[in-house]
Amino acid sequence: MSFFRPHIVAMTGYTPGEQPRGDKVIKLNTNENPYHCSPKVKAAIGRVVTQGLQKYPDPAATAFRIRAGDVLGFEPDWILCGNGSDELLTILTRALVGPGDCVRFAYPSYVLYKTLADIQDARCDLVNFNADWSLGDAFTHSGAGTPRLAFLTNPNSPSGTVVPPERVAALADALPCPLVVDEAYVDFADTHCLDLVRENEKVIVTRTLSKSYALCGLRFGFAVAQPHVVEQLVKVKDSYNCDALSIAGATAAIDDQAWLAETRGKILATRGRLTERLRQLGFDVVDSQTNFVWATHPSEPLEPVYQQLKAGGVLVRYLNYPGWGDGVRRDDGLRVSVGTDEQIDACLALLASLLP
Amino acid sequence: MSFFRPHIVAMTGYTPGEQPRGDKVIKLNTNENPYHCSPKVKAAIGRVVTQGLQKYPDPAATAFRIRAGDVLGFEPDWILCGNGSDELLTILTRALVGPGDCVRFAYPSYVLYKTLADIQDARCDLVNFNADWSLGDAFTHSGAGTPRLAFLTNPNSPSGTVVPPERVAALADALPCPLVVDEAYVDFADTHCLDLVRENEKVIVTRTLSKSYALCGLRFGFAVAQPHVVEQLVKVKDSYNCDALSIAGATAAIDDQAWLAETRGKILATRGRLTERLRQLGFDVVDSQTNFVWATHPSEPLEPVYQQLKAGGVLVRYLNYPGWGDGVRRDDGLRVSVGTDEQIDACLALLASLLP
Repeated sequence: MSFFRPHIVAMTGYTPGEQPRGDKVIKLNTNENPYHCSPKVKAAIGRVVTQGLQKYPDPAATAFRIRAGDVLGFEPDWILCGNGSDELLTILTRALVGPGDCVRFAYPSYVLYKTLADIQDARCDLVNFNADWSLGDAFTHSGAGTPRLAFLTNPNSPSGTVVPPERVAALADALPCPLVVDEAYVDFADTHCLDLVRENEKVIVTRTLSKSYALCGLRFGFAVAQPHVVEQLVKVKDSYNCDALSIAGATAAIDDQAWLAETRGKILATRGRLTERLRQLGFDVVDSQTNFVWATHPSEPLEPVYQQLKAGGVLVRYLNYPGWGDGVRRDDGLRVSVGTDEQIDACLALLASLLP
Repeated sequence: MSFFRPHIVAMTGYTPGEQPRGDKVIKLNTNENPYHCSPKVKAAIGRVVTQGLQKYPDPAATAFRIRAGDVLGFEPDWILCGNGSDELLTILTRALVGPGDCVRFAYPSYVLYKTLADIQDARCDLVNFNADWSLGDAFTHSGAGTPRLAFLTNPNSPSGTVVPPERVAALADALPCPLVVDEAYVDFADTHCLDLVRENEKVIVTRTLSKSYALCGLRFGFAVAQPHVVEQLVKVKDSYNCDALSIAGATAAIDDQAWLAETRGKILATRGRLTERLRQLGFDVVDSQTNFVWATHPSEPLEPVYQQLKAGGVLVRYLNYPGWGDGVRRDDGLRVSVGTDEQIDACLALLASLLP
């Protein structure tokens, strides 16, 4: 059909990580939490189901915004809820970026930003991370056009590293546009950037309940921004973007900080073991502040290793970033989500058998 | 903040119908189904909750597409699922309409189309329904620019009337752009336009499980379009736009056609009583093919009636369409959702006491 906008026809859609059905695969490829969510989440969802689903949900997800605001130290009007943080990234892009505009983000990072720019018929300006995963001044002065929006995944994927809040504050000050700090993995990190939102209207933090609260299947995320920013973003969202079950479940989830602390503790312990053992196996692994680790290898080609792991029933993410390597560091690596100890032991045993 | 796109700052957001919390109000304002959904839906959701929500949902909602395809007579690749049919309307607008483009729709109808056009910085071309709610050739040749997308709510809101499929086919043929037939209320009607999708790549039908399946709270809708059309639309949707609970619930819902037939029967019976009694009270009520009726009045101002109903605990929708009246017919009316018999009796009794 020739009616579609030409740039939509020309673009390639985003390909999410594989989602094999069934329980036979040890799935360590999309950074899901290996544990069940808080039982309080399940109970809250059950109550809504019993009450019935015939009525529309609260368009503003007020219950969640009040509870999250209490937990995080913000008034509810600083919070905007979405159908996963992906929807908030979409809303932000639509509200700020038009055809021909420039979107800046660091590389390698979350490739969805490119898809979001493509849909808006916008241009992308990728700025390479330094070799130690710090971010240089090119991020604010790249010379490749004035950006209308900048994204920083922090902690970053695939590296699992963090740009410190002081540095993020400086980047936000120097940028000529809003900076979205995508904190999808922040609950596994030592620092966060929420305080910057209070100080700078240009800083917008997005979060998701998918990873740390084990709710990928529920689709619930939120943004924290100054109220006059939220006010504009609301215009772009679908009226009833969060369903009644996800609002109730997400509210119960963020209310159960004891569950979060316990689950975080387990994942960080497993992450430490995984990192150490991968290094023993000859991988280069940077210290992670997320629920995954990024393993590159100085000599072994990793795509065959990924394939052999998959054949052995262990699915990790093979990622290749052309132009990222520097002769010493290679372009590609394996991103391994932190599963249960049993899953990680199985993955490591298989890896050990595959490497020389 | 001066960074937002100027047309976003300038626009007014869509205001959904009031969603009062609590059970004290008789809520007949947003066309919700008064009955609980099929028990099979509740059971299906319960099973997913028990299994856990830590994994991502199927990005393509395959289970629903297979089952809905069986029920409706389409292969799964003719179906695209969304977070409510509102999301599908958003996706369609983003894929087909850019800044300065023209979106055509009938008036009075679903005002969300204007919001969707506004977000894209597009223009709207509204074509009035005829006095008998038929749609004239101005819809295809309005003279106000060449549309890139046309919307037809069918059955229509607020009128509850249907443009017959033969007429829709002729409109689609004559239009220079795709025609979205928004069939949110079609399960309460005598006809539908699914067959046109097979014959004409320009016809795209959208549906929701909100109204007829009593699942407003779940947020699940779908589009039926030719596979090469679906292929383009997929690029614009968020990867995991439907959550695991809604996919399971929606699949169980569309599988339970016996529940739909029974519930539809109850609502149509109540609709008949409501229509008849409103006419006895002096309202003009056009025959409805939806789960609401549109009541205008030849002499009484209706906004005060709406307010008095609300004060009495009965919430209906007061809608005013400037420029719609023709001297005889007024601009405004009450749109009353078909509730339970008890709710409708209470509404009618209160109305009778308010009118002279």
